[in-house]
Amino acid sequence: MATQAAFVVKFPQQQLARPGRVHGRPVPPARVGIAVRRGSPGNSAVAVAASPAAPRGVRCRAGGLIEPDGGTLVELVAPEEGGRRAALRREAAALPHRVRLGRVDTEWVHVLSEGWASPLRGFMRETEFLQALHFNAVRGGDGAMVNMSVPIVLAVDDAQRRAILASGATSVALVDDHDRPVAVLSDIEIYKHNKEERIARTWGTTAPGLPYVEEAITNAGDWLIGGDLEVIEPIKYNDGLDQYRLSPAQLREEFARRNADAVFAFQLRNPVHNGHALLMTDTRRRLLDMGYKNPVLLLHPLGGFTKADDVPLSVRMKQHEKVLEEGVLNPESTVVAIFPSPMHYAGPTEVQWHAKARINAGANFYIVGRDPAGMGHPMEKRDLYDADHGKKVLSMAPGLERLNILPFKVAAYDRKYNKMNFFDPSRKEDFLFISGTKMRGLAKNRESPPDGFMCPGGWKVLVEYYDSLTPPEGSPKLREAVAA
Amino acid sequence: MATQAAFVVKFPQQQLARPGRVHGRPVPPARVGIAVRRGSPGNSAVAVAASPAAPRGVRCRAGGLIEPDGGTLVELVAPEEGGRRAALRREAAALPHRVRLGRVDTEWVHVLSEGWASPLRGFMRETEFLQALHFNAVRGGDGAMVNMSVPIVLAVDDAQRRAILASGATSVALVDDHDRPVAVLSDIEIYKHNKEERIARTWGTTAPGLPYVEEAITNAGDWLIGGDLEVIEPIKYNDGLDQYRLSPAQLREEFARRNADAVFAFQLRNPVHNGHALLMTDTRRRLLDMGYKNPVLLLHPLGGFTKADDVPLSVRMKQHEKVLEEGVLNPESTVVAIFPSPMHYAGPTEVQWHAKARINAGANFYIVGRDPAGMGHPMEKRDLYDADHGKKVLSMAPGLERLNILPFKVAAYDRKYNKMNFFDPSRKEDFLFISGTKMRGLAKNRESPPDGFMCPGGWKVLVEYYDSLTPPEGSPKLREAVAA
Repeated sequence: MATQAAFVVKFPQQQLARPGRVHGRPVPPARVGIAVRRGSPGNSAVAVAASPAAPRGVRCRAGGLIEPDGGTLVELVAPEEGGRRAALRREAAALPHRVRLGRVDTEWVHVLSEGWASPLRGFMRETEFLQALHFNAVRGGDGAMVNMSVPIVLAVDDAQRRAILASGATSVALVDDHDRPVAVLSDIEIYKHNKEERIARTWGTTAPGLPYVEEAITNAGDWLIGGDLEVIEPIKYNDGLDQYRLSPAQLREEFARRNADAVFAFQLRNPVHNGHALLMTDTRRRLLDMGYKNPVLLLHPLGGFTKADDVPLSVRMKQHEKVLEEGVLNPESTVVAIFPSPMHYAGPTEVQWHAKARINAGANFYIVGRDPAGMGHPMEKRDLYDADHGKKVLSMAPGLERLNILPFKVAAYDRKYNKMNFFDPSRKEDFLFISGTKMRGLAKNRESPPDGFMCPGGWKVLVEYYDSLTPPEGSPKLREAVAA
Repeated sequence: MATQAAFVVKFPQQQLARPGRVHGRPVPPARVGIAVRRGSPGNSAVAVAASPAAPRGVRCRAGGLIEPDGGTLVELVAPEEGGRRAALRREAAALPHRVRLGRVDTEWVHVLSEGWASPLRGFMRETEFLQALHFNAVRGGDGAMVNMSVPIVLAVDDAQRRAILASGATSVALVDDHDRPVAVLSDIEIYKHNKEERIARTWGTTAPGLPYVEEAITNAGDWLIGGDLEVIEPIKYNDGLDQYRLSPAQLREEFARRNADAVFAFQLRNPVHNGHALLMTDTRRRLLDMGYKNPVLLLHPLGGFTKADDVPLSVRMKQHEKVLEEGVLNPESTVVAIFPSPMHYAGPTEVQWHAKARINAGANFYIVGRDPAGMGHPMEKRDLYDADHGKKVLSMAPGLERLNILPFKVAAYDRKYNKMNFFDPSRKEDFLFISGTKMRGLAKNRESPPDGFMCPGGWKVLVEYYDSLTPPEGSPKLREAVAA
């Protein structure tokens, strides 16, 4: 990111990734107040988080951050030391079968490799796939249910399946679009990809026009290949944003370095306005009131596949930077990082995945808003999901009992005080609701939102982005418009 | 049932329903052998089961049959004594809002009233509905997951909803098609009936032509009404088969009376052929080998809604009678009763409901076959579900950990020995597979199956049934056929 400014939180990749380096130090236990939800009100002290360089599977010390699902943070990147990377690269190059990774596949390799989906150790085999579809949870080795609501699967076509089965191979190489080996999938299992059933059970509809389905399912193969994943080296995108792509282990280390005794995660795929900021600031205040000494915000924009009309990641990151630069959020208690998952827009099913993955990154509080991961129905004039279902489903989901769910308070523009404020139903006429669509419309038309809706620098980023989309004068599109 | 013969197991309704009457007596603990599945290998002794006349909620004694889900068998029929029935009938008659029950609704009232869906105490409110759809399980009062894979819901239309909300009513009367009160639903909650989402998540498809959907969802209202159910008197059908409709409490009492120390349930909606019988007999032998002293079979045909081309319940019951009369199954260790649930044909989702309901009736072993509760895809030339998914999903389902799953061994007609036998792949050319469709085709055409496929009396029942469907000579249909 070129415009890194004073207030922006920076995590030099090298330092965090240094083998064996651990910054955490124990802090006194917090006084613990009200439990926001069933289960314990949070972990009381921060000690040593997982070290990213330790061999896959670092058990977190008791009394530290919330434990990852399954008790162990899965890490599937071959360690730098000991020659394993070179050996794995040779092994991959020698394998007769290669499965080419699409964009979304690569994002899943990334997600899996860093343990966001702990305790999953690779693309799902059929038992995991079925459990995800039917129960939104998989049983761990100890029989306990671990939340897992979206299938993390890799498709192969008929010809690939036949060839693999005919050869009796037990491993395949996963390669990028230049045919370079990225990972090895071993102890493989190939099973039927019933797309209709997968889509129906994940989205609660089979209507055409679901963005993830069109991107990653419709044209995918009719078989799924599961197995244990080993990735040759950390996944990088070389888009100037890799420094923000912190793994769960790196995030845990950062939270420990900051002596966080509570971590509250905020998932978003939109620009941050002052209503969001108010909510996040208010959440920290509530956690302090509960007795936590240093609650840290994980501001965690989703960085994988999004639908075409969402604001692109690079723009959103620039906008988030401004929000911190201009002091709307406090950089001392805020960690900004990118969540590498692709977006499903699967509402109540997906919000569980968003929450579960953040447990693995050390968050024990999760802020959930109206219609999380929702979108309009692709064929009908209505929202695909009931706006309250996400919050309700999340609060009841198996395997998320340890996570404290913080419902999003509704903020809107308060015309009495000319700022974003929590909605007060007793004087509802004072409030102006500005939806994401409306916000994008204003920015597109270079109109200004009311003062205090968003910090000026952040708004400017959005206006510039939409400007860049407008075809220059004399372009075919504009001429067409004039002619009409 | 007119043709009740010597061998048919008979359960005089009056005797079983007599208040406070308990037949069970303790038996010595069985020697317990191999655990068929995770969890304990079964309950070791049979003591006193729930008494059907005790007020709703009889906790089973430890050491008896398997405990019902939630620990307590729910019973929602007003007790005969104490004037509650008359009072409830008056209460229902005085309620301003009446919801008319369709055929399937009445079956669900029946199911709920007898505790097959324990711990559910009425039609689902939204939290239960969402949990069923997303997790196939609901959380009981103690936080433990109880299996519940199909929504048990009651629909109302826009006008009904508006009227109920406008009046501020908290209870409604449920009435039959003659407007006679059947039950009261109290502490009601009305919420959106998103049919598309319900269908997609329950069936894994939204293709038109799903029998349950067409019967009970497509034309149902756009709202669901949940609440606590109290039923005025036991649901009866007056079709000559009510004597077979034993409640879970009555079944538990019968198992106790027989000193059953294991109960294995066999769900079916088809005639019993000798392959089924072989399987059931073999299961009893295996349970004896495990150390049980008296495993009892619950032969449990589904009695609610089925699709048009299934063999009707009355014919199936007549056929099952013959199977016992002719000694194919041993009446001493077999209880035949009707399971009152409607059929969903929802494969892996529904088989969980079939199994869970039988736990509530005291079964701790469940036999599961190929493609349970499956059917052909309504639009495509393939089965709707993978034939193995039912068994797999069932074995992993939350809330069914206590149930021992017994996979169905494949039986087929063995031409070497002229009888049904377990399939032996080493001499597969000897085996003839006779599908349900083929069996129905033979019976329709008055052809005989190979000797030993089904007992002669049972086969005769089927042939007579299909004969009764054939239009008599000279009927328009036949003439048309002749003319063609």
